[in-house]
Amino acid sequence: MKSDPAKKGSGGTLPVAVLGATGYAGVELLRILARHPKVKLTSVTSQQYAGKRVSDVYPSLAGKCDVVLETLEPEKAAAAAEIVFAALPHETSADAVASLLTRDKRVIDLSADFRLHDAKDYDRWYKGHKAPHLLKDAVYGLTELHRKEIAGARLIANPGCYPTGAILGVAPLFAKKLARNNIVVDAKSGTTGAGRSASVDLSFSEVNENFKAYNVGVHRHTPEMEQELSEVAGERVTVLFAPHLVPMNRGILSTIYVELKSAPADGELEKLYSEFYRGEPFVRLVPPGQLPQAKDVRGSNDIAIGLRYDARTSRLVVVTALDNLVKGAAGQAVENMNVMCGWPEDEALRELALVP
Amino acid sequence: MKSDPAKKGSGGTLPVAVLGATGYAGVELLRILARHPKVKLTSVTSQQYAGKRVSDVYPSLAGKCDVVLETLEPEKAAAAAEIVFAALPHETSADAVASLLTRDKRVIDLSADFRLHDAKDYDRWYKGHKAPHLLKDAVYGLTELHRKEIAGARLIANPGCYPTGAILGVAPLFAKKLARNNIVVDAKSGTTGAGRSASVDLSFSEVNENFKAYNVGVHRHTPEMEQELSEVAGERVTVLFAPHLVPMNRGILSTIYVELKSAPADGELEKLYSEFYRGEPFVRLVPPGQLPQAKDVRGSNDIAIGLRYDARTSRLVVVTALDNLVKGAAGQAVENMNVMCGWPEDEALRELALVP
Amino acid sequence: MKSDPAKKGSGGTLPVAVLGATGYAGVELLRILARHPKVKLTSVTSQQYAGKRVSDVYPSLAGKCDVVLETLEPEKAAAAAEIVFAALPHETSADAVASLLTRDKRVIDLSADFRLHDAKDYDRWYKGHKAPHLLKDAVYGLTELHRKEIAGARLIANPGCYPTGAILGVAPLFAKKLARNNIVVDAKSGTTGAGRSASVDLSFSEVNENFKAYNVGVHRHTPEMEQELSEVAGERVTVLFAPHLVPMNRGILSTIYVELKSAPADGELEKLYSEFYRGEPFVRLVPPGQLPQAKDVRGSNDIAIGLRYDARTSRLVVVTALDNLVKGAAGQAVENMNVMCGWPEDEALRELALVP
Amino acid sequence: MKSDPAKKGSGGTLPVAVLGATGYAGVELLRILARHPKVKLTSVTSQQYAGKRVSDVYPSLAGKCDVVLETLEPEKAAAAAEIVFAALPHETSADAVASLLTRDKRVIDLSADFRLHDAKDYDRWYKGHKAPHLLKDAVYGLTELHRKEIAGARLIANPGCYPTGAILGVAPLFAKKLARNNIVVDAKSGTTGAGRSASVDLSFSEVNENFKAYNVGVHRHTPEMEQELSEVAGERVTVLFAPHLVPMNRGILSTIYVELKSAPADGELEKLYSEFYRGEPFVRLVPPGQLPQAKDVRGSNDIAIGLRYDARTSRLVVVTALDNLVKGAAGQAVENMNVMCGWPEDEALRELALVP
Repeated sequence: MKSDPAKKGSGGTLPVAVLGATGYAGVELLRILARHPKVKLTSVTSQQYAGKRVSDVYPSLAGKCDVVLETLEPEKAAAAAEIVFAALPHETSADAVASLLTRDKRVIDLSADFRLHDAKDYDRWYKGHKAPHLLKDAVYGLTELHRKEIAGARLIANPGCYPTGAILGVAPLFAKKLARNNIVVDAKSGTTGAGRSASVDLSFSEVNENFKAYNVGVHRHTPEMEQELSEVAGERVTVLFAPHLVPMNRGILSTIYVELKSAPADGELEKLYSEFYRGEPFVRLVPPGQLPQAKDVRGSNDIAIGLRYDARTSRLVVVTALDNLVKGAAGQAVENMNVMCGWPEDEALRELALVP
Repeated sequence: MKSDPAKKGSGGTLPVAVLGATGYAGVELLRILARHPKVKLTSVTSQQYAGKRVSDVYPSLAGKCDVVLETLEPEKAAAAAEIVFAALPHETSADAVASLLTRDKRVIDLSADFRLHDAKDYDRWYKGHKAPHLLKDAVYGLTELHRKEIAGARLIANPGCYPTGAILGVAPLFAKKLARNNIVVDAKSGTTGAGRSASVDLSFSEVNENFKAYNVGVHRHTPEMEQELSEVAGERVTVLFAPHLVPMNRGILSTIYVELKSAPADGELEKLYSEFYRGEPFVRLVPPGQLPQAKDVRGSNDIAIGLRYDARTSRLVVVTALDNLVKGAAGQAVENMNVMCGWPEDEALRELALVP
Repeated sequence: MKSDPAKKGSGGTLPVAVLGATGYAGVELLRILARHPKVKLTSVTSQQYAGKRVSDVYPSLAGKCDVVLETLEPEKAAAAAEIVFAALPHETSADAVASLLTRDKRVIDLSADFRLHDAKDYDRWYKGHKAPHLLKDAVYGLTELHRKEIAGARLIANPGCYPTGAILGVAPLFAKKLARNNIVVDAKSGTTGAGRSASVDLSFSEVNENFKAYNVGVHRHTPEMEQELSEVAGERVTVLFAPHLVPMNRGILSTIYVELKSAPADGELEKLYSEFYRGEPFVRLVPPGQLPQAKDVRGSNDIAIGLRYDARTSRLVVVTALDNLVKGAAGQAVENMNVMCGWPEDEALRELALVP
Repeated sequence: MKSDPAKKGSGGTLPVAVLGATGYAGVELLRILARHPKVKLTSVTSQQYAGKRVSDVYPSLAGKCDVVLETLEPEKAAAAAEIVFAALPHETSADAVASLLTRDKRVIDLSADFRLHDAKDYDRWYKGHKAPHLLKDAVYGLTELHRKEIAGARLIANPGCYPTGAILGVAPLFAKKLARNNIVVDAKSGTTGAGRSASVDLSFSEVNENFKAYNVGVHRHTPEMEQELSEVAGERVTVLFAPHLVPMNRGILSTIYVELKSAPADGELEKLYSEFYRGEPFVRLVPPGQLPQAKDVRGSNDIAIGLRYDARTSRLVVVTALDNLVKGAAGQAVENMNVMCGWPEDEALRELALVP
């Protein structure tokens, strides 16, 4: 079922499309795809800016990516591309995805529409699902957990930014049944996680020199975390998820509180994580005694993970850091495409973090 | 023509109203007026939030200022108050002001509608003036230059934030005819200067980790600067005004480039400024060799001024700093009220800057 | 034992001293004391800047507080003042405090030196205590919990910034024995909490556009929280404390995870908190359904508290917000002085938050 | 005199060294060189961190660039590399450079030590030059102006960050003798321009929510601007340079005020710039009516230039934007290496700006 890049596109490159290219995840896709040697952008859509060049909206792309934005017509994208990235809003993506799949395209969907296996979960946390018949075809695109299914998938549900940081942070523990099944994820995100939108609440004057919690216990990324961790654990895991807004553009730091069933031996957890993630190109375990920081991964596709067991309170604290627009969205989407096409998994994703 | 505070309000306080109280200048007015011992807030309006408590919109006011917001009806405000602060948008303020003056109220208008003496200037930089007949009654409320007229005025046109920093920075030079009549004002403002609005351009993700110039040469505050400086100079002064947006909430730093007619003697300029501003409660001249910074005045009604003459290029650089919401808006408005009522000019304005 | 303000100082004001006035807590004390009508600053010390005016170090104070900084000599401060605020580093404050108490002065110590009742706890989390014999005289200056002892105390151990937010956030629960005795405090602080120091780690280039956890499980504020909550609970409470650094200057937001012994009835917790804090001038309970934000209290002495019970995971999340330099340090210190002197508790502390 | 990359290094890569690799320009060099296909890092020094892995200091490099830092010994670097980047402090670089040149290595010096042709200028703005005999060999590495000499040079004086933005902004005007020879450069820089240093003035608490001017008229980058523009103009050009510090990490926006000898015809200036910079890979002229912003080039080697002629005041305003660590330092250094080696000028420099 793999696409054959040799047959498609000009000069052996695979034609790809991006739907919803002027949101922050969309433009990050363009930034990464523009330097991907094996693909060619053939169709790029934006409802708001159709008719303009993308570089009119994002001058940073001028001279590097000057495609003209089109209105969203899935059939046109299907005609132009073999793989389509859908970076559309939740609840509107499903229709476009369905149309693309009908036309036998492979789709990487960055919305939440196909992340939850059970349509009832979707209905509970979002609104009525528009294409529940496709859920069975969707693979949750957390590459480290589902690489094999991703390789053959026609529909990837690219994970949410928060779930990526939470799930990868504790999956080894649940795989080994070391953790009690009730964890707290206290996550802190930069503002781009909220998307590109005109809103007083997201204005600089409101966000700067401020810090807040929001949607505590009711954030829509909760069921994603529970679904994947339950699958890893083989039993129901519940997550109390408390997201916070940090006055920075990029990055999510997740502080995860886990009760272990028994105190770990010296080095036991480090060994567990290191085996679980052996060979993973984008998972970086920080040295014992250290914890990752948001800037360590800014602009890169890495996720960094640190562990601290607190013997006083018998709790493990796991801290993970990722760039919400890269590993948390566009980077992981390209990673999935690379896997789907049998390309090096880090193609176009070797960028080092932009520090300082 | 002065209001007599003893006669009005409960307990000898003067009843005042604030129209447009949920914009940033409006809420800053509330913050200052809430601690003013001689006034009582009797009417507070907000089109967007009418019916809510102001503390529902700004939780920082909870327990301190919980008035219910009303829709804008100038006659109601006129009935409830002796002095009315209008913090309404440009081009819509004039109507409300006209209605209030008809009812014999004194008005401090924070919009631009009555700042330019000549309606033709207004028409050129804004749109058709709605109450040009009132322009002759308006006093430009830069207290340091017009204290006497302010005391007796019925309509104060409260200065723009940028003009306050620019005019006070160079007025002494023009008063003494030391400067050539063509200056450059390169000003840098925090984001609250743009008001409280839902706009992608003002969102945190766009403003943070960015810096830009905007409206170079065409910003509407230009004619205010030219009007006042020309009046001080007794001849036509032109200003090239280039505003910039700084990723901070509050503060304007203006760097003003002036060609002097001749090189100044040692200490001449310091002496000039110090005499010009002698006794001024809110003008602070920084010691020779130093320059003011935005934070030095954050939250206070001060304007700080520093001078550097560059002999190599025969140019004087004047740097001024103020808080755009205080001395650049609400603080200066209350200062004007204090003058109008014969109260200590710094009543409710003695707050020290919030540093760090 | 109360000082009699009528007898001391010029014009009936009480002479006070500030030791260590150029650190951030110190300068915040000056900012507040400068507007306190019942005190007069008679001695202000700074090791680093002795001989300079404080306004040379903090231009924001120019014209408002221009005292000359002295070297630290407790006997001189004792001679000049009745109440002394010590804003000195941990582990060096005890000596100065001992000297002042010998001279019969009342001391409000902002360091950690007298916060822990048990010298062994101090030795474990800090270094060998220099004046353990004074510990029995020290009152932990969390006004809401110890108002009565504060009124008569000669030595106040002013609480740490983090403990203030954590303890007040959950004290009502422990007072009623509703909570299990093992809580998680995930706190996020602005940078001024780390003090005024030359450090690469605190430089703008490192902190901006970053977010990190630090000292997880080993932060020195942990035993303060445990001591006070255990006292309230009447049994040993343990706290897993995980502090984080936010790219903002001021503010601490604490997200506290509590397991309740049983699910609360509707409105039960709101009622409990509202009774526990009835009449408290600085505790603000936010309306049900809302959570406080850091900016809501910036520059004010308030602490805002919000509650969210998550039935899915049977956990209560308490969120508190305070300004680390005001309620978390200098403001609470002045509050304690007001209580010690029998003055209105909010004297000089009525400032509204500086928003936006 | 060109190095022959085919002969050197393992696998046909050229061995290069970086002296002073843990400063911000140094680590940016590592970030860029790590992805340069034609070079191999063979020696990396840091006085402060010798013996550690560079990824211990910058975790963002972990797994990508884990070289062990060495102490600075020019002879060792010379033995290990053909091209040496010196990112050492001003006034200490000259010695190392001299030693390297003696050993016949080609050097790209990021310090100011060889930027000024005249040792007397250096002595006036810096301190006594330590290797004035080498000044005649140094080529000022502003690629757009000196590409030919750079190709054959043994010593490149890599330009300062501010001069790069100022000189490229107005060079076309002076080349055509359109401008009067007295310009004002009002520049605004992010904090990384001040380097990685422990300093209260650069701490987050001081820089955040602040904006200031510094070194107005006396900044050391002034003579660089004057030297290069005078050379372009064929007559003495003087520059009043006023730098400012912006609360952001990366980026310089320069607003340059120029008096033209006569009013430009419509489109005349755009045409001039477009011809002057035709074919330049890193100079981007923004469309008429627009101005560049700092973020447009963040993380990229581009400089963006915008023009606005203000007929009212007969002045031209030129605005340029660059990333001070890339085009203003490390990127331009690699660009120069590419030119020296006859490689594609944009090798390893094709990165798109990291936006948002």
